[in-house]
Amino acid sequence: MKPPFHQPVDAAQVPRFAGHSTFMRLPVVSNAEGLDIALVGIPWDGGTTNRAGARHGPREVRNQSSLMRRAHHVSGIAPFSVANVADVGDLSVNPIDLLDSLKRIEAGMTAIVRTGAIPLSVGGDHLTTLPVLRAVAKERPVGLIHFDAHSDTNDTYFGDNPYTHGTPFRRAIEEGLVDPKRIVQIGIRGSVYDPGEHDWAKDQGIRIIYMEEFLRRGAEDVMEEARRIAGDGPTYISFDIDSIDPSMAPGTGTPEIGGFSTREAQQMVRLLAGVDIVGADVVEVAPPFDLAGMTALAGATIMFELLCVIAGQVAAGRTVAGAT
Amino acid sequence: MKPPFHQPVDAAQVPRFAGHSTFMRLPVVSNAEGLDIALVGIPWDGGTTNRAGARHGPREVRNQSSLMRRAHHVSGIAPFSVANVADVGDLSVNPIDLLDSLKRIEAGMTAIVRTGAIPLSVGGDHLTTLPVLRAVAKERPVGLIHFDAHSDTNDTYFGDNPYTHGTPFRRAIEEGLVDPKRIVQIGIRGSVYDPGEHDWAKDQGIRIIYMEEFLRRGAEDVMEEARRIAGDGPTYISFDIDSIDPSMAPGTGTPEIGGFSTREAQQMVRLLAGVDIVGADVVEVAPPFDLAGMTALAGATIMFELLCVIAGQVAAGRTVAGAT
Amino acid sequence: MKPPFHQPVDAAQVPRFAGHSTFMRLPVVSNAEGLDIALVGIPWDGGTTNRAGARHGPREVRNQSSLMRRAHHVSGIAPFSVANVADVGDLSVNPIDLLDSLKRIEAGMTAIVRTGAIPLSVGGDHLTTLPVLRAVAKERPVGLIHFDAHSDTNDTYFGDNPYTHGTPFRRAIEEGLVDPKRIVQIGIRGSVYDPGEHDWAKDQGIRIIYMEEFLRRGAEDVMEEARRIAGDGPTYISFDIDSIDPSMAPGTGTPEIGGFSTREAQQMVRLLAGVDIVGADVVEVAPPFDLAGMTALAGATIMFELLCVIAGQVAAGRTVAGAT
Amino acid sequence: MKPPFHQPVDAAQVPRFAGHSTFMRLPVVSNAEGLDIALVGIPWDGGTTNRAGARHGPREVRNQSSLMRRAHHVSGIAPFSVANVADVGDLSVNPIDLLDSLKRIEAGMTAIVRTGAIPLSVGGDHLTTLPVLRAVAKERPVGLIHFDAHSDTNDTYFGDNPYTHGTPFRRAIEEGLVDPKRIVQIGIRGSVYDPGEHDWAKDQGIRIIYMEEFLRRGAEDVMEEARRIAGDGPTYISFDIDSIDPSMAPGTGTPEIGGFSTREAQQMVRLLAGVDIVGADVVEVAPPFDLAGMTALAGATIMFELLCVIAGQVAAGRTVAGAT
Amino acid sequence: MKPPFHQPVDAAQVPRFAGHSTFMRLPVVSNAEGLDIALVGIPWDGGTTNRAGARHGPREVRNQSSLMRRAHHVSGIAPFSVANVADVGDLSVNPIDLLDSLKRIEAGMTAIVRTGAIPLSVGGDHLTTLPVLRAVAKERPVGLIHFDAHSDTNDTYFGDNPYTHGTPFRRAIEEGLVDPKRIVQIGIRGSVYDPGEHDWAKDQGIRIIYMEEFLRRGAEDVMEEARRIAGDGPTYISFDIDSIDPSMAPGTGTPEIGGFSTREAQQMVRLLAGVDIVGADVVEVAPPFDLAGMTALAGATIMFELLCVIAGQVAAGRTVAGAT
Amino acid sequence: MKPPFHQPVDAAQVPRFAGHSTFMRLPVVSNAEGLDIALVGIPWDGGTTNRAGARHGPREVRNQSSLMRRAHHVSGIAPFSVANVADVGDLSVNPIDLLDSLKRIEAGMTAIVRTGAIPLSVGGDHLTTLPVLRAVAKERPVGLIHFDAHSDTNDTYFGDNPYTHGTPFRRAIEEGLVDPKRIVQIGIRGSVYDPGEHDWAKDQGIRIIYMEEFLRRGAEDVMEEARRIAGDGPTYISFDIDSIDPSMAPGTGTPEIGGFSTREAQQMVRLLAGVDIVGADVVEVAPPFDLAGMTALAGATIMFELLCVIAGQVAAGRTVAGAT
Ligand SMILES: [Mn+2]
Ligand SMILES: [Mn+2]
Ligand SMILES: [Mn+2]
Ligand SMILES: [Mn+2]
Ligand SMILES: [Mn+2]
Ligand SMILES: [Mn+2]
Ligand SMILES: [Mn+2]
Ligand SMILES: [Mn+2]
Ligand SMILES: [Mn+2]
Ligand SMILES: [Mn+2]
Ligand SMILES: [Mn+2]
Ligand SMILES: [Mn+2]
Repeated sequence: MKPPFHQPVDAAQVPRFAGHSTFMRLPVVSNAEGLDIALVGIPWDGGTTNRAGARHGPREVRNQSSLMRRAHHVSGIAPFSVANVADVGDLSVNPIDLLDSLKRIEAGMTAIVRTGAIPLSVGGDHLTTLPVLRAVAKERPVGLIHFDAHSDTNDTYFGDNPYTHGTPFRRAIEEGLVDPKRIVQIGIRGSVYDPGEHDWAKDQGIRIIYMEEFLRRGAEDVMEEARRIAGDGPTYISFDIDSIDPSMAPGTGTPEIGGFSTREAQQMVRLLAGVDIVGADVVEVAPPFDLAGMTALAGATIMFELLCVIAGQVAAGRTVAGAT
Repeated sequence: MKPPFHQPVDAAQVPRFAGHSTFMRLPVVSNAEGLDIALVGIPWDGGTTNRAGARHGPREVRNQSSLMRRAHHVSGIAPFSVANVADVGDLSVNPIDLLDSLKRIEAGMTAIVRTGAIPLSVGGDHLTTLPVLRAVAKERPVGLIHFDAHSDTNDTYFGDNPYTHGTPFRRAIEEGLVDPKRIVQIGIRGSVYDPGEHDWAKDQGIRIIYMEEFLRRGAEDVMEEARRIAGDGPTYISFDIDSIDPSMAPGTGTPEIGGFSTREAQQMVRLLAGVDIVGADVVEVAPPFDLAGMTALAGATIMFELLCVIAGQVAAGRTVAGAT
Repeated sequence: MKPPFHQPVDAAQVPRFAGHSTFMRLPVVSNAEGLDIALVGIPWDGGTTNRAGARHGPREVRNQSSLMRRAHHVSGIAPFSVANVADVGDLSVNPIDLLDSLKRIEAGMTAIVRTGAIPLSVGGDHLTTLPVLRAVAKERPVGLIHFDAHSDTNDTYFGDNPYTHGTPFRRAIEEGLVDPKRIVQIGIRGSVYDPGEHDWAKDQGIRIIYMEEFLRRGAEDVMEEARRIAGDGPTYISFDIDSIDPSMAPGTGTPEIGGFSTREAQQMVRLLAGVDIVGADVVEVAPPFDLAGMTALAGATIMFELLCVIAGQVAAGRTVAGAT
Repeated sequence: MKPPFHQPVDAAQVPRFAGHSTFMRLPVVSNAEGLDIALVGIPWDGGTTNRAGARHGPREVRNQSSLMRRAHHVSGIAPFSVANVADVGDLSVNPIDLLDSLKRIEAGMTAIVRTGAIPLSVGGDHLTTLPVLRAVAKERPVGLIHFDAHSDTNDTYFGDNPYTHGTPFRRAIEEGLVDPKRIVQIGIRGSVYDPGEHDWAKDQGIRIIYMEEFLRRGAEDVMEEARRIAGDGPTYISFDIDSIDPSMAPGTGTPEIGGFSTREAQQMVRLLAGVDIVGADVVEVAPPFDLAGMTALAGATIMFELLCVIAGQVAAGRTVAGAT
Repeated sequence: MKPPFHQPVDAAQVPRFAGHSTFMRLPVVSNAEGLDIALVGIPWDGGTTNRAGARHGPREVRNQSSLMRRAHHVSGIAPFSVANVADVGDLSVNPIDLLDSLKRIEAGMTAIVRTGAIPLSVGGDHLTTLPVLRAVAKERPVGLIHFDAHSDTNDTYFGDNPYTHGTPFRRAIEEGLVDPKRIVQIGIRGSVYDPGEHDWAKDQGIRIIYMEEFLRRGAEDVMEEARRIAGDGPTYISFDIDSIDPSMAPGTGTPEIGGFSTREAQQMVRLLAGVDIVGADVVEVAPPFDLAGMTALAGATIMFELLCVIAGQVAAGRTVAGAT
Repeated sequence: MKPPFHQPVDAAQVPRFAGHSTFMRLPVVSNAEGLDIALVGIPWDGGTTNRAGARHGPREVRNQSSLMRRAHHVSGIAPFSVANVADVGDLSVNPIDLLDSLKRIEAGMTAIVRTGAIPLSVGGDHLTTLPVLRAVAKERPVGLIHFDAHSDTNDTYFGDNPYTHGTPFRRAIEEGLVDPKRIVQIGIRGSVYDPGEHDWAKDQGIRIIYMEEFLRRGAEDVMEEARRIAGDGPTYISFDIDSIDPSMAPGTGTPEIGGFSTREAQQMVRLLAGVDIVGADVVEVAPPFDLAGMTALAGATIMFELLCVIAGQVAAGRTVAGAT
């Protein structure tokens, strides 16, 4: 029997501009118990070295997610019909203390993961992915499919600061949270501090697919490789909105021209189907730099695309389980 | 014994940019039972003849109300300590049907009023005040203190349309909802369609205090007269954000230069203390025309000022009741 | 002998920022008599269920159309040399009454059509296309080439409202104004309320070319099919600006990421040559949500592209007629 | 018998967002014959030394003037009932040639003045006032009431350039167009290049009322002096929008904080009644720097205020003439 | 003999939009040796608990300061003629480490103070004033004239964080950097967390002049008291841009409606003449929230006003010294 | 031995939002002596016939160039390691005098060229390229690779004005500064004044690659032809930012939809490697029309791409020279 899944508010009863602003117009629940997928905000940008503002991301992505509807027009997946999804609110953060924030985020995410729900979060800057991985990958390293203009595998900053939004994946490798052989980074571009800036990452076994390679090969070919790299094991998906072109996502801290079109980004996310996703995020939406909610809309739509892929995975699992 | 009043989220636990966006960061409740004051949105602008957009008002006023704190620095009133206040959500509206919307708003507001809670609503365009008055003044006509750049007592539009945001108070008088002898309109200004445009209103007994008179007399003198006109009877307060100058409230449909400063508006609202307020609203905040959330912030702050005045009235009543 | 065609103001005599703001800087005429092509505004958005604002579209498209020049650089068509074109102003609308507006628009458009002029209009929301079709297709159903992110073939809204900008083409089919077998919709994308949302449209025989199919096939292939579907009969062209990506056309009510680039849109419009066009429109330009006039510029340029195609058709007919 | 005056489009027949964008929604006429007052644009900013953009002023002021109505709510003057007013379009200018533009503007304005119509123009930068004065003061020097943050009586720029928007009134004095003893400048403020920068102006007899003096004395007192200085002779009114505070008029080239409120500006313009006005302008509205049309709205409203004062003067003259 | 003072670039040689962007278009120097007044940026906002962005303040204030000229039109002071002033650049900060930043700012400011130059800095959030005071008040406590919407004397945040932009003056009192009896805070307003929120400050002897008291008394009376409180001793001036109304200074983190007009702010700064100023700052200009550079322009102009007052003080001292 | 090249400020010592705003955060030098490449601004837009603003281009491009880093991630070129590069400031211009400005720009650029440095400039409108060519091509005509939406080979304007931003390359050919057989224009599109508008250019031998041809052939093929046309001789590169699509570069005077993506633009610039570049520019960045700094960022990045290509050429020459 189909469980009583949470449903978004019906737009033919409550117009999209009315009602409370939650992810996908879903109910707010106090914890993730019973959920298949937990939508959650991480409003923190203390790891940002230049243009902060991603702390305001979850609120504006919630707002623009009011434009999402019930089903995916390509895959036909209706996520709220096949999976129990809700908005579990924002994780606790400390706007004035980096280390405390990392602890709070890890704790909040651990509480979600323990219920068995798959977390789909909205940042926050990219450093928030580190404590998320500490929660998601507590038991074993995970694979990583990472969309970004930047590799985010720098070492330190301003002398010896190990934690910024330019370093999360170096820390995650060092902490054994991700298996570098199962990491693929897609869309990397823009000037670098040093011609050898990505050598460490490559030495670890990370596969960097620069934007220029993507342009030559196209989304299907690239994503086939990405799925192969991630393999069958548990995999985390991290989507930095700055992978998308600044004309389509101006509201971000480190824009780099020459980025993905939203069409390409959507196509790539759809091609994640089949990956064993244990968590996903959309990060670096910085509303103070946004125009007309454009970046928040792109973030909300990518979130919906990810939700549909994960819901498809949940549905497949549910079917199998129901079959026994 | 002090009842278990609803409390806003603590900004020292959850930063202002985090958490769900509700009026004053208060809990959302499903109905007004047990409340002293019900904060409510009316997201509808179907009465707007030129620049629509006030339908988006409640959402953005909720957002900016996250900057409000717990106590008023002049009156010392801490509204959430002396009154039970919550966000009861948005009233049901029909974005495509004017008459149906008027019915829905009246019904939704009637349900609030019946609980004994005082409604403090955020529009929506000024036509929304008509169905609110139908609910609030069901039993007897009320007085009206009305801040606006416009008298809103026109008759019809485009031939015979009786319902627009330029006509609510003419209709309210015709329907016996307000006592024209107990109406004062403050801040009226701007060009008119006809030199005699306000004659009907004046003939009914409405007292119009044009902006020019306000400038000569000042807020204290004007508000003393306003309180005298409203008298001891039940009175409704309607605050059209376009009464404030467009430089401070650009996000509105019918801007008129030469308006109130926010300081003057705040001073006038504070001087409402002593009036028997049975309901209040802030209308015509139109976010698509706003700049940097400035109008929504002004609207949220005026709402907080009104809340403090009403909470003071509730507290006074509670004390008296408690004294018996 | 070449008739005395109307000419745009010369930019080397009157700078583009000077002079009155009319479509293509053409003269304003009081009616369509003697025109081959009538440029007309329909400033009404009463069918909009979420973000209104398209009522302001004609004014801003007129403004941006001041950047258009006299000839098309690809086709070489100089529309004002081969066809008599003018700005006939805006149709009469009633901002407060949906049914009255539908009647006024139909009447205004009927007056244009009766002169033999081909109408090229700028909305207004997409519901305005329904009364336009009532005028254009009075005598026989027409074909339809429809560029949009949405199918706009929903049935009702908020219970039983039959008329919104999500329903015009369902109504047009029911009223026999368009031949569903001769309808093609291009660019449809975005989440849907139901996986079967488009079943009714497909059952009628409408050909929906989703964005994903467009991406695989390209503009030439798709437009070849579109011309085949429209066939030799009279055909209407409807261009919803939200078919274009929100980064290029942010000023619209229902943005969907992953849209057409303006290049693709221009290419498709140029490939309409050969279709028997009896009318065309550009709709859903909503200036309150626009950035830097970008959407109005896109709308004005698409309008110019359509004008050149229609002028080419007029010129061909004139030649044939002149040959007899 | 009352002549058939031109009338604005009726907003209850054609909504304010519809119809062509003309000054006050009046008809466009090809020349000033028969007019009492000619509304005219001067779209030229070639005299601007820092932030250009006032060339776009007339178009946006026309747009915002659609919010003006038929009568003044304080004076009761209904300008279109007592004077024949129309939009005579924009004067010819040359965007690339300063001296040619000065000639064209003078010629265009001379054509207006010769008909007997009083010109009320919208710039354009403040240098445009020089050729206007050459036309208006051809026969005899005029008085000048000048609202501005700047004295605009500098001598040369970049060596020996005599013509910039910082020099028009020095040139006008030198050319005998204005009587320096009958000049008053109100609102002057902001840092200066030299402590003695205004000495030349004062030596000529110009009365400079700095903002600080205005603050002490108030509008009534200041304007009484201004009227006394202008005296009974023919007087020109020049209103630089930068006299208003940048928060209310951000769209201008040389903003200076601490300016007039729009209320003060309106009050001063109303107190011009009684002056023998032979022409007036509103200049330096620069839309590329504007926010939400705020500056253009202020400009349009000041234009309406000036129009009402001039119409009152026309009406008085008409009455006298009619009495003989 | 007059020393070879640094001079701003001449606007009649290099237009204001050209040349490098420095404070007041002055030369950049590598340290403060030989300067009377050192203009300096402190680009850091790590103490901001809600809307960050003041880190970008110095760059935009430099940009807008290009509109300042050479002399003050009221006082007649020409600062660059009577004092040696230059742009000494930005202090070193660490965007990712609060405590390290406080040390760096103190060190940088100490280096300036040791040269004998008076620092006039642009923040940065208000926490930057704490390390500045540590440098300026190393030897003895100073007085403080503090313009702000907020008292900034809170204790801790998020449990036990002692350092935020809401706490600098509590810390400064505890550290003996300021004499609480010689502190006056002007413009305080807005809702508070607790009715007794300012009790601690008042208990220390701080004089809080709320906005409402200012409105009753006016600038002259208030500043007379402020000068009396500061007395003859060394005094620091701290100007939080949020003391100004959000319509005139929207680009700030914690806007409160009902603020000072820029006219009032300018008047108050001018009335600082006579105070023994040992340092001054303008803080909380947050460009990501600004509109059209309006806040940065207000900040730059207040900075110029402060500069003129301090230059007057330098000139007076120089005269006295020269007299011996 | 490697000469002591100028280096940008280290972002790990001085955050990107801190420090003075110079091209690429390089030192400012007073002249080009000793430089391999001179970065220079030309803040002048007196040749603009419609929407001026490019005079503000250099300042904002400097600002956004703070996001550039030290090395190119595709070519691996680290320009500051292989070439001596610095910011030589802005050339002298006269904002009020066209002919004087052309002389000043030529003189300033001649001084740079004489040192042997290769100039890489930022305009300014496209007319600035004419005096630059007068300096660069003093000795012999050069080839030209020209990216633009417009051919800029018109003859005169407003009668007989020979100098506007629509005419520089016609003048350059007439003056013998460029060899028309070695000119290629890429990206030309948009409506034209006359179907034969480009006939003169083509008759001279200019190769025009319209946008539509580019779309069919792609960047590699087109650039191979461009390099062939330019040949081995000295060649100038001129990049009009309006060649990029308005969604990615809205801040420009003459936007034309359907432009290059930034990816395509970057790819084309990279394919300039091998051309003998004697100078290059990025023009028509007009900040008053920009959104969120997007156009200035695109301009800064294209400038960095050009810099890397030129630095590669310098390095190659240095190696060869060193080898002898
Ligand atoms: Mn990242
Ligand atoms: Mn990134
Ligand atoms: Mn109203
Ligand atoms: Mn109103
Ligand atoms: Mn549609
Ligand atoms: Mn659509
Ligand atoms: Mn002026
Ligand atoms: Mn001025
Ligand atoms: Mn503060
Ligand atoms: Mn503050
Ligand atoms: Mn060009
Ligand atoms: Mn161009």
